[in-house]
Amino acid sequence: MTPEEFRSAGHQLIDWIADYRQAIEQMPVRAQVEPGDVRRNFPTELPATTAAVGELLDELQTIVVPGITQVQHPMHYGWFPSNASLASVLGDIASSGLGTLGISWESCPALTEVETVVCDWMRQLTGLSDAWQGTIHDTASTACLTALMVAREQASDFSQNRGGLQSEPSALVVYSTAEAHSSITKSALLAGYGQDNLRFIDVDPETRAMSVAALRFAIEQDLANGLKPTAIVASVGSTGVTAVDPVAKIAEIANHHNIWLHVDAAMAGSAMLLPECRPLWEGVELADSISWNPHKWMGTILDCSLFYVRNTQLLIRVMSTNPSYLQSSVDDEVIQYRDWGIPLGRRFRALKLWFHLRIDGIEAIRQRLRRDIDNARWFAEQVEATEHWQVLAPVNLQTVCIRHEPPGLNNEALDAHTLRWVNQINQSGDAFMSASQLDGRWMVRVSIGVESTTRKHVEALWQLIQHTVSRSPEK
Amino acid sequence: MTPEEFRSAGHQLIDWIADYRQAIEQMPVRAQVEPGDVRRNFPTELPATTAAVGELLDELQTIVVPGITQVQHPMHYGWFPSNASLASVLGDIASSGLGTLGISWESCPALTEVETVVCDWMRQLTGLSDAWQGTIHDTASTACLTALMVAREQASDFSQNRGGLQSEPSALVVYSTAEAHSSITKSALLAGYGQDNLRFIDVDPETRAMSVAALRFAIEQDLANGLKPTAIVASVGSTGVTAVDPVAKIAEIANHHNIWLHVDAAMAGSAMLLPECRPLWEGVELADSISWNPHKWMGTILDCSLFYVRNTQLLIRVMSTNPSYLQSSVDDEVIQYRDWGIPLGRRFRALKLWFHLRIDGIEAIRQRLRRDIDNARWFAEQVEATEHWQVLAPVNLQTVCIRHEPPGLNNEALDAHTLRWVNQINQSGDAFMSASQLDGRWMVRVSIGVESTTRKHVEALWQLIQHTVSRSPEK
Repeated sequence: MTPEEFRSAGHQLIDWIADYRQAIEQMPVRAQVEPGDVRRNFPTELPATTAAVGELLDELQTIVVPGITQVQHPMHYGWFPSNASLASVLGDIASSGLGTLGISWESCPALTEVETVVCDWMRQLTGLSDAWQGTIHDTASTACLTALMVAREQASDFSQNRGGLQSEPSALVVYSTAEAHSSITKSALLAGYGQDNLRFIDVDPETRAMSVAALRFAIEQDLANGLKPTAIVASVGSTGVTAVDPVAKIAEIANHHNIWLHVDAAMAGSAMLLPECRPLWEGVELADSISWNPHKWMGTILDCSLFYVRNTQLLIRVMSTNPSYLQSSVDDEVIQYRDWGIPLGRRFRALKLWFHLRIDGIEAIRQRLRRDIDNARWFAEQVEATEHWQVLAPVNLQTVCIRHEPPGLNNEALDAHTLRWVNQINQSGDAFMSASQLDGRWMVRVSIGVESTTRKHVEALWQLIQHTVSRSPEK
Repeated sequence: MTPEEFRSAGHQLIDWIADYRQAIEQMPVRAQVEPGDVRRNFPTELPATTAAVGELLDELQTIVVPGITQVQHPMHYGWFPSNASLASVLGDIASSGLGTLGISWESCPALTEVETVVCDWMRQLTGLSDAWQGTIHDTASTACLTALMVAREQASDFSQNRGGLQSEPSALVVYSTAEAHSSITKSALLAGYGQDNLRFIDVDPETRAMSVAALRFAIEQDLANGLKPTAIVASVGSTGVTAVDPVAKIAEIANHHNIWLHVDAAMAGSAMLLPECRPLWEGVELADSISWNPHKWMGTILDCSLFYVRNTQLLIRVMSTNPSYLQSSVDDEVIQYRDWGIPLGRRFRALKLWFHLRIDGIEAIRQRLRRDIDNARWFAEQVEATEHWQVLAPVNLQTVCIRHEPPGLNNEALDAHTLRWVNQINQSGDAFMSASQLDGRWMVRVSIGVESTTRKHVEALWQLIQHTVSRSPEK
């Protein structure tokens, strides 16, 4: 395809995208397809004839779009917000158009240096000191895996350079809570720690935050048993109920025992753009690494996960590689981001953050985040003020965990009731929320924060929920 | 930003990209900037005022573009080709515009199912049997790390579910060669195997392919010493000299000892689109996993690395996670790609492969690959036919490793001479090649295969090289 053909096709595509984004509110939120529906519309072999862009846009419209759960829809309240702000989309398109290769500073100096610039802007905007240096990973899962690998090497005096983890005399232990994101467990298992060495520390029954006393006790017990406490993952804004572990107190313990402290603020990092929210991660300066995802609530299109560390030399010592064909004469003067994470090749992801910040501006972004927090408070107040409705956890940010508890239902019947009404709404396509378990019982997470979700939509959601429940056989 | 503002800005951006792509041939190949040059053009803090898209495009042009090493330039012969074909760029733009979220089938059924479709198309197009199922990773580094983690768990009877790698009685051993990509070593170290348990098997001095006898000997020795041979990484098209390990014979040994065999065909996978090249990976059906990057020579824009396995249940058992908030009623009927790799969230990367295949068509892609192979043969013939020039390794595909060896130079002087002429060309911006080491001596890799590189450009390169060398003080 020539640049001129691209120009023409690109204009068609931009119009298609703009039309698509305009029409989202008219679409069902959750995709109304069954397993295999999308796939069956494709031939099992690549067609022998080529297609014009117009044909592919038609297929996008008729085959792909019905198979999309519309997370940009204002009535989407599922999982966490996954905003793809159009300003950041432009930056992402610029990255695609440039077609750069990020494998070393030399392969694209601008890719490296703009990443340094925007990571530092984001550091300042979230109130972090200049002791931190950041990079962009794909997801917080990868960032956490990286942190736990570095922690493993620090605790084993760099066993990777000798006999590996297998040669260690003591088991290395990771601490987190059952509220922590599933990727924490996955990371610990992939990093080789083993399920037996993963401690799910008790949480406060009210706030679901890690109990510092229980953490201290577990560490002392492990030390007494000859094990090596290696890493703590503190959640700031857990996935289930947005629980916030007490970072300052955890950091004190971590520093005392020389344990790596990783702060997973995948969701709540966006809130740190608001000075008034920063008490939530008080003590973060004493941590060793932090990850948070602008690709969630803040709205820089996926994939954009920030990973900050204080000791970059330690990170590089664990993650670096330097074959002859990647060396250049300036290597001592520049950052090689390939040594800050797992993949060698990287996209020019800094552009989407740059475009997002410069076009929308940080004040507009902050205003939107505050709007969402207000909407969540308003929604929680409505729920609490209504008979037989419960808000099940403190509303720390923008996610409200609720349950309708009509009298006379036992636990099983209550679970059935909860799943019935939430599934009915999700299946209707009118709104989408996540069912999730808390203490083994189903509840519903209403996660507010899609860019287009206004108070009007939150009001409509509350009406819809009440209406649905009122028609339920268990009402 | 509203969809209407996006429409207008998007059209500006598409024109800018088309103009940029048209102008690439007039730009220097290697970025003509010093460390810090790009960064210094940015303010240290995010500006308080917002910017229009036009302003950002101006900054892209004046600040970013000079900091890009133009890997889409027809005179780029560095590293490996990193083509970003404009058809695939359109698919990437569609992905950005849709703003989907891939964390489960339910979060975007189309994202999952189109990925299944295109991975299967690609399987057929490279002649693999239907015993293989594929997914898209960001890079071959990540794919290799995944393979080595799965191998580790298979060999340890899933130690991750118990005491982890530390609890294993025997050290687990990984086999590769010194020619293998740097990410293989990195992956083995990150997966916890340890440097002591990483064997760099001898290679044939001519072909640089793994010696099967040496592999067999190393495995037998490790077994005799009570170690556990766990994984072999065979390179099909190594980074240095495009060496091709004998997969069939290696697979025989691997299968005999129940060792996981990962085939790293990051570069050469593109060649498997050509039936005549498939003897290069003969025996691949007996491997356990394969990775290759359409984002290299084939030209589906980065990041697009295919990862195929035969035993998906084993892969899923190692990589899966299934928290309550991601569960849905159809989970048993669908693929959850989060369980096929490290990250939870994924972009709609299948679109760029789909657009690339459908718009350009496989026959045009194949024709281009054949053109590049012909150009490499022609170039190698010129070099071989010229006095004092050497082709240093078999030209298996499109990379030619060369050295100018004027008489009377000792090793150090020869190294200095090589680096002088290649750096002179690279610094000029007229062309770019990678200097690389072979047996501890510098040589130059001429890696042909940029989409816009025709015979005319390869002829110009050969002229430029000869002219530069003829003016060198060492000629």
